[in-house]
Order: sequence, then C-alpha cells, then structure tokens
Amino acid sequence: AAEGGDSTPASPADSSYETLLVSREDNVTTITLNRPLKKNAITNQMYNEIIAALEEAAKDESAITVFTGAGDFYCSGNDLTNFTKIPEDGIQEMAKRGGELLRKYVKAYIDFPKPLVAVVNGPAVGISVTVLGLFDLVYATDRATFHTPFSQLGQTAEGCSSYTFPKIMGPAKANEMLLFNKKLTAAQACDLGLVTEVFPDSSFQAEVWSRLKGYGKLPPNCLLFSKRLIRSTETERLHAVNDAEVERLVERWTSDECFNAIMSFFQNKSKL
Amino acid sequence: AAEGGDSTPASPADSSYETLLVSREDNVTTITLNRPLKKNAITNQMYNEIIAALEEAAKDESAITVFTGAGDFYCSGNDLTNFTKIPEDGIQEMAKRGGELLRKYVKAYIDFPKPLVAVVNGPAVGISVTVLGLFDLVYATDRATFHTPFSQLGQTAEGCSSYTFPKIMGPAKANEMLLFNKKLTAAQACDLGLVTEVFPDSSFQAEVWSRLKGYGKLPPNCLLFSKRLIRSTETERLHAVNDAEVERLVERWTSDECFNAIMSFFQNKSKL
Amino acid sequence: AAEGGDSTPASPADSSYETLLVSREDNVTTITLNRPLKKNAITNQMYNEIIAALEEAAKDESAITVFTGAGDFYCSGNDLTNFTKIPEDGIQEMAKRGGELLRKYVKAYIDFPKPLVAVVNGPAVGISVTVLGLFDLVYATDRATFHTPFSQLGQTAEGCSSYTFPKIMGPAKANEMLLFNKKLTAAQACDLGLVTEVFPDSSFQAEVWSRLKGYGKLPPNCLLFSKRLIRSTETERLHAVNDAEVERLVERWTSDECFNAIMSFFQNKSKL
Repeated sequence: AAEGGDSTPASPADSSYETLLVSREDNVTTITLNRPLKKNAITNQMYNEIIAALEEAAKDESAITVFTGAGDFYCSGNDLTNFTKIPEDGIQEMAKRGGELLRKYVKAYIDFPKPLVAVVNGPAVGISVTVLGLFDLVYATDRATFHTPFSQLGQTAEGCSSYTFPKIMGPAKANEMLLFNKKLTAAQACDLGLVTEVFPDSSFQAEVWSRLKGYGKLPPNCLLFSKRLIRSTETERLHAVNDAEVERLVERWTSDECFNAIMSFFQNKSKL
Repeated sequence: AAEGGDSTPASPADSSYETLLVSREDNVTTITLNRPLKKNAITNQMYNEIIAALEEAAKDESAITVFTGAGDFYCSGNDLTNFTKIPEDGIQEMAKRGGELLRKYVKAYIDFPKPLVAVVNGPAVGISVTVLGLFDLVYATDRATFHTPFSQLGQTAEGCSSYTFPKIMGPAKANEMLLFNKKLTAAQACDLGLVTEVFPDSSFQAEVWSRLKGYGKLPPNCLLFSKRLIRSTETERLHAVNDAEVERLVERWTSDECFNAIMSFFQNKSKL
Repeated sequence: AAEGGDSTPASPADSSYETLLVSREDNVTTITLNRPLKKNAITNQMYNEIIAALEEAAKDESAITVFTGAGDFYCSGNDLTNFTKIPEDGIQEMAKRGGELLRKYVKAYIDFPKPLVAVVNGPAVGISVTVLGLFDLVYATDRATFHTPFSQLGQTAEGCSSYTFPKIMGPAKANEMLLFNKKLTAAQACDLGLVTEVFPDSSFQAEVWSRLKGYGKLPPNCLLFSKRLIRSTETERLHAVNDAEVERLVERWTSDECFNAIMSFFQNKSKL
C-alpha cells in the first residue's frame, strides 16, 4: 500500500482482475475499466470485479479512490450481450440474477467510505452515468458526453439516479435525461451540477492528476469523516431507492416493451 | 383515445368543459386553459374542471399529458374575484371551502401518474407557477415570466412550492420568489432549474410540439414506471406540505393582513 | 423598537454587546460583527453575544434581520485563538465546551423565525460560510470570497453544511468546498445557489439597503409564516445534522490530525 507518498511508484496493486487495472500511488487508488475495444462496456464479470476492487480500496491505505476508463471512452454502460445469452433456467431467473448483481453493484457505491472521484475521460452511457450521483467529485474532459437512454431501451432508471438526479438538478432538468433520453455535453452536465469541472481534453489528464495528487496529501481521517457526515443523512434512503429501482428493472427485463426495444436496438445496429 | 399515432386527427376529447380545451393526438393529451380574455385566471369552476381533466388524462391511453394556455398568457393565477363574492355563511366558511378546493387541486398534480409537461406560452403568475415544481418538464417561450407575489397579497406559498422551490434552486434563490415577490424571466427560471428549456417565441410552438410528438412514441409503461420511481420517494412529503400550506392559507384568507393587501390590490387596479 | 417606519432613526438597540453592533431601522434589525481589526473572527464571547442578539431580534418588532460585518471582511470564521488557551481541566473538557457552544450557536440559526439576510461585505471563511445555508437570502459584494478549509485544518464540516451544501449545489460541487478546501468567488457562489445575488462593490451597500428597506414594509406575518412553512419540513433533520457535526468536531479537536494541522497553520503564519 502507498503510505509513503511521492516516492511510491505506480504499480498494479492486484493482478487478479481480468477486466480492470488497479493501481496505487500518492495515497490514491485508481480503478481503470480496461476493455477499451468494447468501449469499456460492463460485463457480468466486470460488475463483480468492480465490486471487489471497491471493497479492496475501502480497506487499503489510500485517502481517495479514482474511477476512470482506458482508451477514448469512459464507459458505454451495461454490456447488452449480458441479455443475449438466455440460460437454461429461463429469462425470469436471468432477470433475477441480473437484478441481484445490479443491487450489489450500486450498494458498493452507496457504502463506499472514502472520497470517490470519477475521471470521465470520454463518453459515458447508462449505468456509468447514473452512479455518478453517488460519486463525491466528477472531473470530465470536454470530449465527454452523458447519456442514459432508458426508455429508448424499454428500461427505467438505476444507480439511484431516480433520486440523485432530481435532487442535484431539479426534476425539470433530470427528467430530460431519465425519461426522454437527452444526451448532455460535458459543459451541460457541469452547469447542472452532475460534473464538478470540465477541462480541455489536451490538458485533462495533467490537470486532474495534479489536483488528485494534492488531495491525497490531506488528512485521511478528515476526508473519511467528512464524507460520512455528508452521506449518512441519506444512506438509508439510497438503499431503499436502489431496491425499488432494481425491482422495477427485473420486471422491465421480462416485459414485452423491453424485449422489443432491445431487439430493435440490435437490428438497427446490424443494419449499419 | 389516440392509440393510432400519426393519423389520428386532433379532436376535442371531451366537450363537457366550459373553461378548458382538451384534445388527444399522437398519444399526447393536451389540457388548454381557455379563458384568454381573463389571462386564463383560474376560477373555482376552472379548478374543478382541471381536476376532472387530469383524472381523465390519467386513465386515457395517452403516454404524456401537456398543460398550456390559450392566447398570450399562460395563466394569471387564482382569479381574485374568487374572494369577492362573500357567501351567506361568511368568510370563514368561504376560506375553508377555498382551502379544500386548493388542497384537492394540488393533490391532483402530486398524484398524476404520467409525465406532465408544461408548455408555458406566456406570463405565469401565482399557483400556475408554484405547481410547476410538480411537473416533469417545463418548456417556456422567451416571453414567459414567473411571478409569485404572495406577500404582496398578504398570502403564503402553495402548490408545494415551499418545499419544491428550495429543493430545486436552493433557499437563497427560492426565497426571492416565495418571500420577496421577485418576478423571474424565462432565462432566469431556466438557470434556476424551474424551467427545462427556453425557446424563441417565433419557433416555440413548432419546436416544442415536434419534441412532444416524439415523446409520445416512447414505451408508455417505461414513462409511467420511471415517473413513479422518481415521485414515490417524496409523495408522502408532498402531501404533508400541501396540507400545511393550505392550512396556513385558510388562516391567511381570514386575516387582516391579507384583507388589507387584497383591498389595496383592487384599489390600485381601479386607479389605472 | 422601530415600528414607525421611515422616520425612526438608526440607533443602537442594545449597547450591552462588546463585539457586535445591533441597530433597528425601517423594521429591519441589523447585527454587525464588530471586530474589524481581527477580520471579525468569532471569539467565544462573540458566539454568545450573537446567540443573544438573535434571540432578541426574534422577539423584537422588526420584520427581517440582517447579518453583516464591520470593515473590509465579512468574517474570518472561528478565532483559532479559541484553541490556544488550554484550560486547567484539559483539552478534552475544552473540546466538549467548545462543541456545546457551537451546537447552541448553529441551533440559533436553525430556529430563527424571521427572514434572515446575510449582507456579505467581504471575504467569508469557515463557520461564517457554512451557516449561510441556513440564511434566507445572501447578498454579496463582488469582493466577497467563500472558503471552508476544514480538511486543511484537520477538521470537518459544521453549520449544517454537510447537509445544506450538497442539497443546494449537489455533491459534485459541494465536496470541492467541504472536503477539498476550494475557495469560491462571489460569482461562483452565486452560480451554485449559495448566494442570491452579487453586486459591484461600489454600489453594494446602496443597492442592498434599498431592497432591504422595501422588504421591511411587507406584511410581517406573511414573512414569518412563509419562512415557517419552508423551514418546518427540515427543522428536525437540521438539528440532527448539527448534533452529528458537533459530535464529530469534538472528536476532531482532540485528534492528532487536527492538532498537527493547526500547529502547522500557526507556524506558517508566524513565518510570514
């Protein structure tokens, strides 16, 4: 663990992950989604690895944890091929298992005890956007976009966004994203309070990591206790929202509306 | 009901309303306040007709419901002549009945199950502004203004605005409207999150209706369930706020402060 | 008390305060922090005098209460010399007493019944910033800045800011202030909703006092009841947040992290 500060070299902290890179340096643990050829779309394996990496980061000696993506994309959201392998026990059971995994995934963000920073290095879609409301800071390149096309895909909000987005930006703005598939630019997301600050892509990495290095030197217990004060007033509410969102999505995943919308998505894709 | 989509002609859905126009087209139900000569001020009859029209729209086959005004005004708020006909059983009983009607009116917005869109075609005053916090989208022409002159009229906030406005824009901004009678421009209301987007008046209707037509094609259950997820975390709170606001207004309507303020309003008006 | 309106001369309402000026004019009570040579840093005596002045203002006949600072600073926050006189009964007891005083101080803002307006005449630091989330309006000169360097000083949020700041500006913006010591300009604080409006320093006092004089003429019960409606939905929550923040700070004040951070602060200061 990187207690020593400046002199600690960046090093893979745990090579057991297949879909992530995890490193620790300057009291900062960085979790990098590492499927750049698939725009970092999240497979079931990846959900499980992220949950494990967050659990590890919560316990290590870093002061803050950073989440980012390898390549040009931040994350293209749930890998829709998660839905294409229908198992022997049928679609109902697959939906239940998917719901349980999603519930556990979002819970890992709600309960994460240290400051969690998103370094949004490119376009973000779906669940990689919705959980941003559970992050403590969100830095974005001006190439980033933010898109949650739930109703286009016959689905409904997750990641506690049905609660955090209206709280952050008010319902009149949040519903454009949550109900009506609006894609935000980085500047728009920053105006609405979903993003902390936007940087030109050319200086993005340099500026952001210089700040994060500084944050890593702050008294770690202060950061821990400050986040706990802020989060504790709504932890219970967030868990209830997560449960309600997952329950609804499990119903959605077995509905005709959702089936038709996803079929239509793949058909349009194959036509291109 | 307009299940057929594009080919369905716009048609009055119910001709039983005297103060409203209600039409259905492209899975969109539109409720239009139709007292343009009175700037769409809301009479007691009109409150009851809007409640009935919302109940109808909740049950019809449309995907979304739109609220707008006929003529140059969106709505000038509560028709103050509602206060000038003092009935035989006295002002206390009139205040109680007015409160009960208001409570029922705001309740209709809190409980409305489908996405509810305000198409603010001109200036909005009083209760037509305060209930906007209960809408899901608010599109405004750049001619629109937003004004809630409660304390000027000796009254207090309604439409759940004592809760929704501080939540949307923070108390430092909300109190200028709720306590100190500030009139917002459309651009200001948009910056503060009360309005989703502002359009030049010349293209307002065309742009807004083109979007709404698109929204009407989205999977209706998705919209219904998404709104339910968003609203359900605060339904109980909203009803409690509505009750508290109405109770205070019933007291206000029988107070000297309010009586003097409304007298002064009519005197200034008659001087013009 | 200043019931008479325009003709009432500004006059010290209570000369028993040593660290404050309190005056009443035009139905407005003004509490002025009066240690300009110390940038209005708040000593223990001053906390007690402000609590007393707020209690008095709550009961007097004014319609609104204004809070401002004498000289070029609004307030530089907690006077850190409060920490340097370690009493005979030790640092633990000092921390407990400090916590009790802080709890009572913030409680006075939570429970204040009338509209409370901050006239931020210059830089604001620490607790003078955090309690702004409990004010009803915040007017600022463009010379004002807003800074809450908690973690730099080994401390954590107070003044209910761990709840009000994320509610007002969303966590992505609030955490820059609460966790990462970001200093905001007046314009930034206004964009984020912490400040109602910013004025050029040259016209600040004239413009603000002209408005406040107008507000003092509004029906006082309206203002009182409107504020009560707005505040009542979260009074209980605010008291719980205040208690949790104070409990954490009492722990912080006796921690090595905090001791080291404050020592470092005084050492850097003495080097200048």
